[in-house]
Amino acid sequence: MRIGIDLSGVDDKNEIISFLNTFYEKDVTMVSYGIPQDLNFIKNEHIEKIFCSEEVHISDDPARVHRRKKDSTMIRMINDLKEDKIDISISGGSTGAYMASGIFIIGRISDVKKPALATVLPTVTEHKFLLADLGANVEAKPKDLYNYAKLSILYMKNIYKIDNPTLSLLNIGTEENKGNKLYKEAFLLLKNGFGNFKGNMEAREILNHKYDIILADGFSGNILLKTIEGVAKSLSSMIKSIFLSSILSRISGLLIKKQLKIFKKKFDYSEYGGAILLGLTKPLIKVHGSADKKAIYFAVQQAKKIYKTNLYEKMIKEFKGE
Amino acid sequence: MRIGIDLSGVDDKNEIISFLNTFYEKDVTMVSYGIPQDLNFIKNEHIEKIFCSEEVHISDDPARVHRRKKDSTMIRMINDLKEDKIDISISGGSTGAYMASGIFIIGRISDVKKPALATVLPTVTEHKFLLADLGANVEAKPKDLYNYAKLSILYMKNIYKIDNPTLSLLNIGTEENKGNKLYKEAFLLLKNGFGNFKGNMEAREILNHKYDIILADGFSGNILLKTIEGVAKSLSSMIKSIFLSSILSRISGLLIKKQLKIFKKKFDYSEYGGAILLGLTKPLIKVHGSADKKAIYFAVQQAKKIYKTNLYEKMIKEFKGE
Repeated sequence: MRIGIDLSGVDDKNEIISFLNTFYEKDVTMVSYGIPQDLNFIKNEHIEKIFCSEEVHISDDPARVHRRKKDSTMIRMINDLKEDKIDISISGGSTGAYMASGIFIIGRISDVKKPALATVLPTVTEHKFLLADLGANVEAKPKDLYNYAKLSILYMKNIYKIDNPTLSLLNIGTEENKGNKLYKEAFLLLKNGFGNFKGNMEAREILNHKYDIILADGFSGNILLKTIEGVAKSLSSMIKSIFLSSILSRISGLLIKKQLKIFKKKFDYSEYGGAILLGLTKPLIKVHGSADKKAIYFAVQQAKKIYKTNLYEKMIKEFKGE
Repeated sequence: MRIGIDLSGVDDKNEIISFLNTFYEKDVTMVSYGIPQDLNFIKNEHIEKIFCSEEVHISDDPARVHRRKKDSTMIRMINDLKEDKIDISISGGSTGAYMASGIFIIGRISDVKKPALATVLPTVTEHKFLLADLGANVEAKPKDLYNYAKLSILYMKNIYKIDNPTLSLLNIGTEENKGNKLYKEAFLLLKNGFGNFKGNMEAREILNHKYDIILADGFSGNILLKTIEGVAKSLSSMIKSIFLSSILSRISGLLIKKQLKIFKKKFDYSEYGGAILLGLTKPLIKVHGSADKKAIYFAVQQAKKIYKTNLYEKMIKEFKGE
C-alpha cells in the first residue's frame, strides 16, 4: 500500500522527517509531500518524494485552498489520493483546509450530505470510544447524525474489531425529550435506526462510560473535545506545580513517579492515531499540529488497518444499500 | 431582607435544616418552605416556616409544575416572591421546574425573550468568571446572547465589583467568522454592542483565561459546564486512586496533603454561590442538588449582595433604556 504524508503544517517538521528516515516496511510505501528544503532532509531511499512549490497556512481560506494553492503539499497529496497514486493521506495541516479540500477533491459518499471528523478517545478505565463529529459540520441536521452513526459503526467494527458497537448521543440530559430540536429529532432517528443505540449521555460521563461511539453535532462535539483537552491540561499543570512546590512535595512526586507516568500515558492522545474524516469516498487522516514521531507512527498503523480492512469500500457499499 | 429557601429537592435536607437551625442575622429573615415532617426539624425561632403539602420531583413535567403542584414548596416560594412576601428565593430542586415556574410566575424583564442560567466558575489561577447560559435556553437566537451579555455585565459589576467586565464568546475557534450561523451573528451583535467584547474563546482555555464573562448558547454552555465537572471529577478520582495504590504512594499523599486540599478547595464550586436565573424581574438562585451547609451559606451571601446592590432594579432599568 501507499501512504501519503504531508510534511507541511505541523509545528515540528523534523518529527515527520526523522520518522521517515528510519521507516521501512516491505508492503508499505511512504510518499512524502514537501517543499524542497524539507524533502532534502529525507535521506531514506525507501521514501518517495513529491516536490511541491508551496504550503497551506492556517491563514488560508479553507474553501479556496484547493483552487488557489494547487501546487501545495496538501493539495498535491489529496489530488494523488483522488487519482489512486496513493491509498490514504495523512496531514497535520489546517483542519479546515484539509477537510474542505477533501470534500471538494475526493467527494462524499452518495447520501452523506456532510462528513464528520471522528477520533478515538480514552476514558479513565481501559475503555476507548469514537467521538463524531469533532467539528467538520457545525450546522448538522438530524439525518447527518444518523449517517455519522452508520459510518462510526463500520469504523469501530473494522478498526477495533467490536462486533456490535454501542451508540450514545451527547445531550444535556439523559431523558428522551432532552435537548434542542436537532437533538430531539436525531434521538428518534437513532432509536428507530440502530438496535444498539443506548439513548442520551451527559457530558459529565465523558471519561467514565462504556459506549463505543458518542455522537454529537460538530459544534458541541468540538466544545466537548476541547474542554476535555483544556481541563486535563490545566489540572495536570496544577498537579505538576504541586509536586514542584517544596522539597517534601518533590519527594512525594518521586514516590509515585511510575503511577504518574501511567496516568500521563493514558491521556497521551497520540497513541490513538489521528482523526478520520468519515463520509468521503477515500480516507484522509488528520494528525495534531503538534504531532511527534510517535503520533505519526500510530497514524501510519491506523492507515494500514483502514487499508487492510477495506473500510472505505464497505462504507460506500453500506450507503448503496448493498 | 427576607430570603426564601426550599427545603425539598436536595439530596440531603438535613444540610439545609442544620444551616437554618444555627442561623441568625439581624437584618435577614430566612423563610423556609417545606412539608411538615421536614419543617418540624427546624428548632430555631428566628426561622419562618411555610407549611406545604407537596414537593416537586425531578420526574414532574417542568412546564406544568406551576399549575399542577400549587401547594408544593417550590411553587409556594415562587408565588411568595412574586407577591413580595420574600425578596429572593433559593432552591436545590429540579432546575427545569424551577426555571420554567420562575418564567411563568415571576415573568421576564421586558425585551428579554429568554432568560439564561449563569454561574461563577473558577480557573486555575485566582481569576473567576461568569458563564451564561448553562442550559436555560437550548434554542438561543443571536439577540438572546446579546441580552445575556447586558445582564451578565450588571451582575459582575454589582456582585463582584468589576468596573468594566470583559466579555468573550465561547466558540470553536478564535477567528471572527468561526462557528455556526448563530455564533457568527452573535459575534457581530456583541462586537458592535460592547466595547469590552474580546472576541471568541476556545473551550480549551476555559480554566486558563482572564475574561470576566463567557457567553454561550444553553446547549453548548451546558456541555461545557458538565464536561468541566466530569473531567475534573474523573481525573481527581484517578489521582486519588494513585495515592491509595501502595504504601509508598500513601506516604507520598501525606507529604502533599496540604497542597491537595488547596487544589480541592479551588474546585469546590459551592463557594461561588448558586446559579442565577438572569432575565426575570426577580431573583431566583439555584443551588446544586448535592448542596451542603456551606453551599447554602454561600448562596445566602450571594442573595444578600443581590438585594443590597439593587441588582434587579438596575437590570429592569437597563432594558427600559433608563
